[in-house]
Amino acid sequence: MINLTINDATDLAVRALARAGMTPDNARITAEHLVDAALCGHEFSSLPRVIALAEALRDKPPAKATRVVRENHCSALLDGGDNVAYVVSLHAIDKAIDIARKNGVAVVCANNTWFSGRLAYYVERAARQGFVALHTTNTTARVAPFGGVDRLMGTNPFAIAFPSEDDPLIIDIGTSQTTWGDVVLARTKGEPLPQGVAVSPAGHPTTDPQQALDGAILPWGGARGSGLALAVQVLGILAGSDLVIDDISNYGLFFVVIDPKLFMPSDQFPARVTAFRQVIAANRPQSGGGAVRVPGDSSQQRRRENLERGVINLDDKVHARLCELAGDKL
Amino acid sequence: MINLTINDATDLAVRALARAGMTPDNARITAEHLVDAALCGHEFSSLPRVIALAEALRDKPPAKATRVVRENHCSALLDGGDNVAYVVSLHAIDKAIDIARKNGVAVVCANNTWFSGRLAYYVERAARQGFVALHTTNTTARVAPFGGVDRLMGTNPFAIAFPSEDDPLIIDIGTSQTTWGDVVLARTKGEPLPQGVAVSPAGHPTTDPQQALDGAILPWGGARGSGLALAVQVLGILAGSDLVIDDISNYGLFFVVIDPKLFMPSDQFPARVTAFRQVIAANRPQSGGGAVRVPGDSSQQRRRENLERGVINLDDKVHARLCELAGDKL
Repeated sequence: MINLTINDATDLAVRALARAGMTPDNARITAEHLVDAALCGHEFSSLPRVIALAEALRDKPPAKATRVVRENHCSALLDGGDNVAYVVSLHAIDKAIDIARKNGVAVVCANNTWFSGRLAYYVERAARQGFVALHTTNTTARVAPFGGVDRLMGTNPFAIAFPSEDDPLIIDIGTSQTTWGDVVLARTKGEPLPQGVAVSPAGHPTTDPQQALDGAILPWGGARGSGLALAVQVLGILAGSDLVIDDISNYGLFFVVIDPKLFMPSDQFPARVTAFRQVIAANRPQSGGGAVRVPGDSSQQRRRENLERGVINLDDKVHARLCELAGDKL
Repeated sequence: MINLTINDATDLAVRALARAGMTPDNARITAEHLVDAALCGHEFSSLPRVIALAEALRDKPPAKATRVVRENHCSALLDGGDNVAYVVSLHAIDKAIDIARKNGVAVVCANNTWFSGRLAYYVERAARQGFVALHTTNTTARVAPFGGVDRLMGTNPFAIAFPSEDDPLIIDIGTSQTTWGDVVLARTKGEPLPQGVAVSPAGHPTTDPQQALDGAILPWGGARGSGLALAVQVLGILAGSDLVIDDISNYGLFFVVIDPKLFMPSDQFPARVTAFRQVIAANRPQSGGGAVRVPGDSSQQRRRENLERGVINLDDKVHARLCELAGDKL
């Protein structure tokens, strides 16, 4: 493990992404997201993603700037210009926040983009400015619908954040039994998958990562979870995505941002969310279990601790590869 | 079983509800919802609910008319006047449709209301007029959060509907392992509950319905399902509900209605939803399983069949009790 300061880690990621073809601004937007994921303890979603991004960028023509295609006083549609969703989602949530600040409500969609980071990052950004924010994205098809065996949906995450008097309350859930990244990791490690998370190309239950990669991942939560995943898929279609996303392109991003002052006097809603967080945390734990966790709190706790430490741990091999991508002499 | 024509069933429910204290208009709105649930094959959510409604109405002061408390060009807040949510949700979705028709987007909240019907009913109403509609409601606290044992949330359903060229695509999911009604039914029948759906007041896993009624139901879908249930709870708080709803009152209803024409040319979105429905139905089924089901389709299929038959089946005892409530001579 290598320890990097937050600035050095960000700078390394910016240089690697810029050298892979991103504009300096977009490289910085993306790097800041990835470093934040590292601070929050989500290793897979953090700096190792630079490597996958650089690979994907190699196969793509240069991206164009994100632009607003349609807009009215409470909505906007963005063409992501084939930029990575780390960039497009940031532009989209900021557009939604702008609209909601003026008019109270915003629905913003974006397409022509790919990869999605932690959705929590974007809804938290809105919640820290006092807004309720809901965000979904569909992604490359790897997941079968309930009862089926053919790939139809992606990991299709769903996130929502609520402002409080301290940290926002953030719910960010994927809708697949496992992730593509976890299956690839299991293959690399030579480990079997848990039962019930994937099917082979012939449609049989499998614990073999390669069979799962060739076949399909199963949806989380049975028929209900599959329903939620399908809803996220169609919200992406509303945003202009393909019906089924066969490639790493043209995801559909969907955002709703709401000013709670539409519904109650200023400051009342954040106070009520704070009070509700306390109610959750005060729930008696199940016997043998720890304290009941408020969604999003452990990420935020890790971020606070890591910000205090001021350093990010990075796997040696990942660090070496990032330096190589950045063109650094080792 | 007794067979009633749709008109006779509606009329019977209207008379029973009016005699229990509802205005004729509100009794009709409620009866039409319950008859539709019967047509869709959801027996528990249908005419037997008149009995529970009459009981609840007996304990309540007369309701006031639903009124709009706050409004801007893209949102509204309704005070439900302590009317049943069958009525308030209909007023709220119609308000949201009105706003979305003019401005493209509507966020509508409502409080001071109780009981919730099938959320599908309201989002379908919007989708049949060409809109995407999302609806959640929090309900009387019976469900513990993940890892906990104290009641915090209700069955907290989440529904979304998308317009298509034929029937809307409707996802309507509850977020608890089981429902209060199912636990009461198990107690009546003297049957145990399935494993893993409830805890006793002391916080131990239980299959005893009475222990479950005194204790708490568990959330569906582990930490993720619990997260979704908490999100629905906080959207209800945004609408003005209590933090934890201890009584049959002051639920919080939340609606978002979106005109898809904001994001693509007219008629394109319904056509894409129709195409996506076909993609879902064409998914190869798991070995030994039936065809992959499109969410909401079986309800709509049953409704078509029952409309063709033109009659509703009603349990003899339920029928007798409804006649009694309506003041009919038997």
